[in-house]
Amino acid sequence: MTKILDLPPGLPAAGTRTESDAMGEIEVPADRYWGAQTQRSLLHFSIGDDRMPKAVYHAYGHVKRAAAIVNGRAGRLEEWMAALIARVSEEVIAGELDEHFPLFVWQTGSGTQSNMNVNEVIGNRAIQLVGGELGSKTPIHPNDHVNKAQSSNDTFPTAMHIASVRALHERLLPSVELLCAAIEAKAAAWQDVVKIGRTHLQDAVPLTVGQQWNGYAHQLRGAIAQVTVSAEGLYELAAGGTAVGTGLNAPPDFGEQIAAEIAASTGYPFRTAPDKFAALAGLDAMVAASAGVRALAVVLMKLANDIRWLASGPRAGLAELRLPANEPGSSIMPGKVNPTQCEAMVMVCIQVLANDSAVAAAGAQGTFELNTMRPIVIADFLHSTTILADACRTFREYCVVGIELNTRQIDAYVGRSLMLVTALAPAIGYDRASEIAHKADREDTTLREAAIESGYISAEDFDRIVDPRGMV
Amino acid sequence: MTKILDLPPGLPAAGTRTESDAMGEIEVPADRYWGAQTQRSLLHFSIGDDRMPKAVYHAYGHVKRAAAIVNGRAGRLEEWMAALIARVSEEVIAGELDEHFPLFVWQTGSGTQSNMNVNEVIGNRAIQLVGGELGSKTPIHPNDHVNKAQSSNDTFPTAMHIASVRALHERLLPSVELLCAAIEAKAAAWQDVVKIGRTHLQDAVPLTVGQQWNGYAHQLRGAIAQVTVSAEGLYELAAGGTAVGTGLNAPPDFGEQIAAEIAASTGYPFRTAPDKFAALAGLDAMVAASAGVRALAVVLMKLANDIRWLASGPRAGLAELRLPANEPGSSIMPGKVNPTQCEAMVMVCIQVLANDSAVAAAGAQGTFELNTMRPIVIADFLHSTTILADACRTFREYCVVGIELNTRQIDAYVGRSLMLVTALAPAIGYDRASEIAHKADREDTTLREAAIESGYISAEDFDRIVDPRGMV
Amino acid sequence: MTKILDLPPGLPAAGTRTESDAMGEIEVPADRYWGAQTQRSLLHFSIGDDRMPKAVYHAYGHVKRAAAIVNGRAGRLEEWMAALIARVSEEVIAGELDEHFPLFVWQTGSGTQSNMNVNEVIGNRAIQLVGGELGSKTPIHPNDHVNKAQSSNDTFPTAMHIASVRALHERLLPSVELLCAAIEAKAAAWQDVVKIGRTHLQDAVPLTVGQQWNGYAHQLRGAIAQVTVSAEGLYELAAGGTAVGTGLNAPPDFGEQIAAEIAASTGYPFRTAPDKFAALAGLDAMVAASAGVRALAVVLMKLANDIRWLASGPRAGLAELRLPANEPGSSIMPGKVNPTQCEAMVMVCIQVLANDSAVAAAGAQGTFELNTMRPIVIADFLHSTTILADACRTFREYCVVGIELNTRQIDAYVGRSLMLVTALAPAIGYDRASEIAHKADREDTTLREAAIESGYISAEDFDRIVDPRGMV
Amino acid sequence: MTKILDLPPGLPAAGTRTESDAMGEIEVPADRYWGAQTQRSLLHFSIGDDRMPKAVYHAYGHVKRAAAIVNGRAGRLEEWMAALIARVSEEVIAGELDEHFPLFVWQTGSGTQSNMNVNEVIGNRAIQLVGGELGSKTPIHPNDHVNKAQSSNDTFPTAMHIASVRALHERLLPSVELLCAAIEAKAAAWQDVVKIGRTHLQDAVPLTVGQQWNGYAHQLRGAIAQVTVSAEGLYELAAGGTAVGTGLNAPPDFGEQIAAEIAASTGYPFRTAPDKFAALAGLDAMVAASAGVRALAVVLMKLANDIRWLASGPRAGLAELRLPANEPGSSIMPGKVNPTQCEAMVMVCIQVLANDSAVAAAGAQGTFELNTMRPIVIADFLHSTTILADACRTFREYCVVGIELNTRQIDAYVGRSLMLVTALAPAIGYDRASEIAHKADREDTTLREAAIESGYISAEDFDRIVDPRGMV
Repeated sequence: MTKILDLPPGLPAAGTRTESDAMGEIEVPADRYWGAQTQRSLLHFSIGDDRMPKAVYHAYGHVKRAAAIVNGRAGRLEEWMAALIARVSEEVIAGELDEHFPLFVWQTGSGTQSNMNVNEVIGNRAIQLVGGELGSKTPIHPNDHVNKAQSSNDTFPTAMHIASVRALHERLLPSVELLCAAIEAKAAAWQDVVKIGRTHLQDAVPLTVGQQWNGYAHQLRGAIAQVTVSAEGLYELAAGGTAVGTGLNAPPDFGEQIAAEIAASTGYPFRTAPDKFAALAGLDAMVAASAGVRALAVVLMKLANDIRWLASGPRAGLAELRLPANEPGSSIMPGKVNPTQCEAMVMVCIQVLANDSAVAAAGAQGTFELNTMRPIVIADFLHSTTILADACRTFREYCVVGIELNTRQIDAYVGRSLMLVTALAPAIGYDRASEIAHKADREDTTLREAAIESGYISAEDFDRIVDPRGMV
Repeated sequence: MTKILDLPPGLPAAGTRTESDAMGEIEVPADRYWGAQTQRSLLHFSIGDDRMPKAVYHAYGHVKRAAAIVNGRAGRLEEWMAALIARVSEEVIAGELDEHFPLFVWQTGSGTQSNMNVNEVIGNRAIQLVGGELGSKTPIHPNDHVNKAQSSNDTFPTAMHIASVRALHERLLPSVELLCAAIEAKAAAWQDVVKIGRTHLQDAVPLTVGQQWNGYAHQLRGAIAQVTVSAEGLYELAAGGTAVGTGLNAPPDFGEQIAAEIAASTGYPFRTAPDKFAALAGLDAMVAASAGVRALAVVLMKLANDIRWLASGPRAGLAELRLPANEPGSSIMPGKVNPTQCEAMVMVCIQVLANDSAVAAAGAQGTFELNTMRPIVIADFLHSTTILADACRTFREYCVVGIELNTRQIDAYVGRSLMLVTALAPAIGYDRASEIAHKADREDTTLREAAIESGYISAEDFDRIVDPRGMV
Repeated sequence: MTKILDLPPGLPAAGTRTESDAMGEIEVPADRYWGAQTQRSLLHFSIGDDRMPKAVYHAYGHVKRAAAIVNGRAGRLEEWMAALIARVSEEVIAGELDEHFPLFVWQTGSGTQSNMNVNEVIGNRAIQLVGGELGSKTPIHPNDHVNKAQSSNDTFPTAMHIASVRALHERLLPSVELLCAAIEAKAAAWQDVVKIGRTHLQDAVPLTVGQQWNGYAHQLRGAIAQVTVSAEGLYELAAGGTAVGTGLNAPPDFGEQIAAEIAASTGYPFRTAPDKFAALAGLDAMVAASAGVRALAVVLMKLANDIRWLASGPRAGLAELRLPANEPGSSIMPGKVNPTQCEAMVMVCIQVLANDSAVAAAGAQGTFELNTMRPIVIADFLHSTTILADACRTFREYCVVGIELNTRQIDAYVGRSLMLVTALAPAIGYDRASEIAHKADREDTTLREAAIESGYISAEDFDRIVDPRGMV
Repeated sequence: MTKILDLPPGLPAAGTRTESDAMGEIEVPADRYWGAQTQRSLLHFSIGDDRMPKAVYHAYGHVKRAAAIVNGRAGRLEEWMAALIARVSEEVIAGELDEHFPLFVWQTGSGTQSNMNVNEVIGNRAIQLVGGELGSKTPIHPNDHVNKAQSSNDTFPTAMHIASVRALHERLLPSVELLCAAIEAKAAAWQDVVKIGRTHLQDAVPLTVGQQWNGYAHQLRGAIAQVTVSAEGLYELAAGGTAVGTGLNAPPDFGEQIAAEIAASTGYPFRTAPDKFAALAGLDAMVAASAGVRALAVVLMKLANDIRWLASGPRAGLAELRLPANEPGSSIMPGKVNPTQCEAMVMVCIQVLANDSAVAAAGAQGTFELNTMRPIVIADFLHSTTILADACRTFREYCVVGIELNTRQIDAYVGRSLMLVTALAPAIGYDRASEIAHKADREDTTLREAAIESGYISAEDFDRIVDPRGMV
């Protein structure tokens, strides 16, 4: 039985050590677990500042752990080695090895270099724990053991799905739910405040502020449902397909077993993809999930725009809402307060739409047995979910919950509206009602004055029919 | 009881007649049923050649018919008038009045002008059938009767949903289903043909042609499911919300009843939208449905690209497939045959992605109680479904069904592949297997020669392990 | 010398006639000039309702005419035949043969079928004019004579450039110029009307209406310049490159000569492309030109949005502008007037942005010696220029020229603004000025009252410094 | 004369200190120069991991330096203070204060918070240098002195333009130039190697490898020109317009002077924008510049795709090129080499297209006197230029320079091509030439055999006419 040392993560070494792969030897920093392939990728792909999100590696930890357990159970890995790889994978899951995953987003399109990064780090960390020599690939080899029965082509999409599901369910949706609840609370508080409606930006018939805000909440709830249903495909995992979908070098039931193990360790209903060829060649589940996130952005953009318009003013705008004054709005205009949370939200939504278009474009660029546009897809997807989740939080916390009504203004708008004339149409016909509205507009009078003066309706009938409260 | 004349659709008149609305009188062509508002729209919005799709008007026929029936049943319209409007609406549904719907896509953002076009045409056609004077609005008034209890703001989105559901279920999905079946037939025919896999465009381990084509079919089936689930929201109808969602001027149960009537006349499970404010202010169901259509385009683009690459050649390409030669390919190069159906499909997919981005952008541009970007959304959505449906048909008929395998070439690729070495890795380890592959590549030998020469494996073991048939 | 008959365009025949190509014989309508390849394309590519724009064929007329003249001059075509092809090409240019160009946009990606359509129509029309037998390809052959020294690969991009240049300079830019002039007239008329500025939708310091509208005009003039400079590359023509850029089967100076001839017949400074390989393999000039058109859409979208917001109301909006009431705005709300031209413009701009993204995507999808995404690019480009040109016209005619100021409202906003406090900052410092603005807002007083009460400034100094007229 | 201390940048303090603004007091980290508004922004806008790029602050250093000098020269700032602010601004320019600029991209849409961050940091650093108390705003006030005669509304766009110009001319274009040169070197080396051309992915007539690569270079040179011309508008600076474009609180010639100063300190031909209203309300110069960058991505995507296809194989692909083997390509398939640099480039290009669509969308979302979508625009623009610049470098260094030809394969393709038949068409006519090509394809013979057997041409004529070298 191999003895496992009790060493915390970390390499207290300086300088470099030699690692190797099929291309030969290469020096890597001595205080990092990664090996030759990671080092080469760092050199060859130092493009911008975009690093593969850590969430992808945490997800990969689940994959490597599950593979080790399944391989160990079937005797394809010695028991101690399976347990050791699983243990180190748990360190990966927990983020304890984050600093050992330095690669850029813009790398090989299959994510192979990130997979090898994980394989190398787990391998060397495991070697450390059995007192071996780092870089020796003995007794734990990154390909032969950590990657056993796997390919980047099936494990990278698997890790993408895991990371995406977690981003949606642990970060994005909870944040949207809280925002939705905050809006519903406002809707409840304001359910009976009658306000003027606006269509085409022009005055229309009235509704209550509560109805309007319930409409916002309803749109958001709809988008939440859309996110959820659009992400269903993420539960299907490619693992078990290995290089091209045939599952070469993996046993027949490997896909089912690894999915079950991942489901158990993550708590989500992951299952093996029914067709591994489609799972490797396409990114369809990611494209669909991205469309769900886009649905949210579409709704939030409208919401943020509505709020900043309704809060426009204070004296030369609509001025129905007062937003919290979180910060001075202008470096030159003293006392200015701006709808900054709304603006941040609108920009975030524009970015989410752009990221989604990148995801769709990348999803359409697959060729033959593999779509090699995977890193951009996972990076943009996680980017979108992260900024949208955070923007929903700040928007709620620093804008929505502090919004107050300017009821004086709201009442005044209802009082002088001409579109209340609509209620007269069933009684006197559309054409006469139209005449009255135009007359009031032209003569700058109230609707009531114009109506009575028109002779089409008596004052009593007018007052009975044209009651804003009765119209909502 | 008003007598209804037995007159076929059509106005055998020449010159113009006078129609009027709140803006005054205007001349319209005497052989057209439309009225003043349609005529004004023709004048004010003669933008390009894009006309509101006829499918929108056919859908509107269902709306007007349903409204008349519901209004008649409740006594809000006289029985004969309700029946008459319903009858004329059926002419609209059947396309018999198509030439009377001339308006442009680029009009008012609510679609009001198309709604009024329908109201005016039904009104005048009904007047004709009772022997009245066209343009008199008597005894049937476009607003007071045909539009009774309705607004453009709730009926135009209702017509959009009906038209979209029909486009998906009667045109797009059947076409995709047929394509899918054609692909599955190919997959079945070719299920045992072993071919070389390709990842990163580079030779990889083998699979069968049947597996590859089943993968295509699986992706398509997934996209069909995506279209279907993404379109669920289309079954919710805005009708009953009238101007801003409150349902002003419509009775309380109008939404439920009109939806039931539309469900009955169309055969789809339409129901009233649970929140009319959201239904008017947003276009969320359309944005979601468009994302579903996009999912199809993403898959089809990959499929069309794969096929044209696999058919590249005939002598300097991959040449695994032979496409039907439908037409001379070149005006200068005699005898050239090109993958023209694939190219048409790729272009259609690019257009669908662009249309979808317009739909999402428009969906995010709502303000307050109404999204006034409706015409572009329905026009682009129907454009996408139409060209995708037709492209699937021509692609199937003139490409897929006629594709043949070049088995000589397919076999040759498998025979000389180096990546069969992958099967050796579990036996001799990744590093030695890698050495063998590099050696064979460098020395331009077969894998078998390099393997045996390497001394890592015996000829017998090689032949036992490296069997392409056993790898798929 | 061959005798040319004096026959107007048109084939007074019924039924079908037989045409043929390398695929064999096929029946075509007897009253159409097209041949076998056109007929096959109609059959194989009946996708949607999108037809190749007629402008492409008119442009192709210039190409065929120029080629015939150059070939004739060099003795590669007999004199009479060169003259005859040139003459028929002029009929094509003039649109007299439009009904003979029926093909769909979604066809072969090189546009070969539209090129052959032109070759066949010119060939048969020429045969008619010499009294020959249609379909005999004798004495004028579509490939050997009409297409002489040409390929679709070099002539289709040439026709694209010609059609695009004409669309920009004869349709789009004149329309934008007129709009710009209308805006400048408004700016001049309103140059001294002081109004409140708005940043972040919130009240800001004042400017004049004239300054604001001059800003609009300046943005438009900038976009016009952008369109112009971005379209420079369109003057470079691919003709002369033939199939792959080498110019095989064309004489060495063919490119220069045909470009010169096209420049002469169109009046634009066309010249031969310096590198034919790039001209065939890329669509770079089209992508750049499309970006120019997009620049216009970006500016017009902002302009249309500003105007509809400034005209919002009439009683519950900003109400600084009054738009012309062209039509009743609502089918249910009598008397409603909506900013419909603005909405149409915004939708058009969204479509232009989407079309531009399709153009860019298609431009990036070239492979090897040819980009085969040409039909979508020219169709979307011409779609954008057409709807933008027309929308600029209707927007100008039915919106901009009729806009009036609501000066009472404009004055009132200036009068009660708090942001005039900005003028105090240099005198009393940002922090104290900020205090005054917040005080006035909190206490709902005028800025003057709050300022004097604050003790930071005297009434005299306030009146001297805080003068809106002096701030613009 | 105020004494300036000789202190290097840095605050050797621990804990927090109190800063204040119009909202009140707030604690900030004692070792940071920033003040209250920066701290509030950090709190209210902690959205994702996207920070405002440092390049924006370096550019802002030029703005603040120029403003101080101009203000000092005119006596609006005391001489010592102007000199001090200029000196600290130079520390900002040099990046020495980078760690004091922590704000997020997703903030107020005007960039006010980043402007105030700069004002606060310069203010406190200057206070430190005169021995004052940090946070006291004495004797240097962030608004009254550092921001003197400025607004965020004019300085943020100014900083955007400066940062963008530098990103293009100092980072992106040099990298593309080097790539272009590397390609031209290959073109020169391979100028006489005849290869088969491919259109529609199908075999076409021949060209030389040098011609093909010169085509690549020509497309790139064209895109470089496009970038350059599209960025011309960036030289126009908004500074001097202050809050809404009127220049309130700035002297009349401030715009000209500050632009001249910035031109001098940066070495670029910056000048003041001719219309400040347009400069603040729009983002047109940024949208145009982004389109230029997109042009580059469109060309690079085609180039990267071509190269990976031409290098496909090694045994079941086109295999005309051999790419350098930088790293093991697969975690499961030993010996695999993949076109990873091409894949990274394609992904980068997709991202650039998506970023550009965000820039255009944001550019169209301005309202009234200000476009408040500025942070997303500068962040996405600099993201695009950065990843594109770096990807061009790694693509050149680790792919292009190491590419080798597989001349055996290239020759073989030419030898067996059927499309050489094109050269026969002028001699024997298109139809007969077509017959020969089809015959050779059908019978799987060489073109020569089929031609001679057809009887249409003699062996001597064939050999004379069908010479690939003569076709290029």
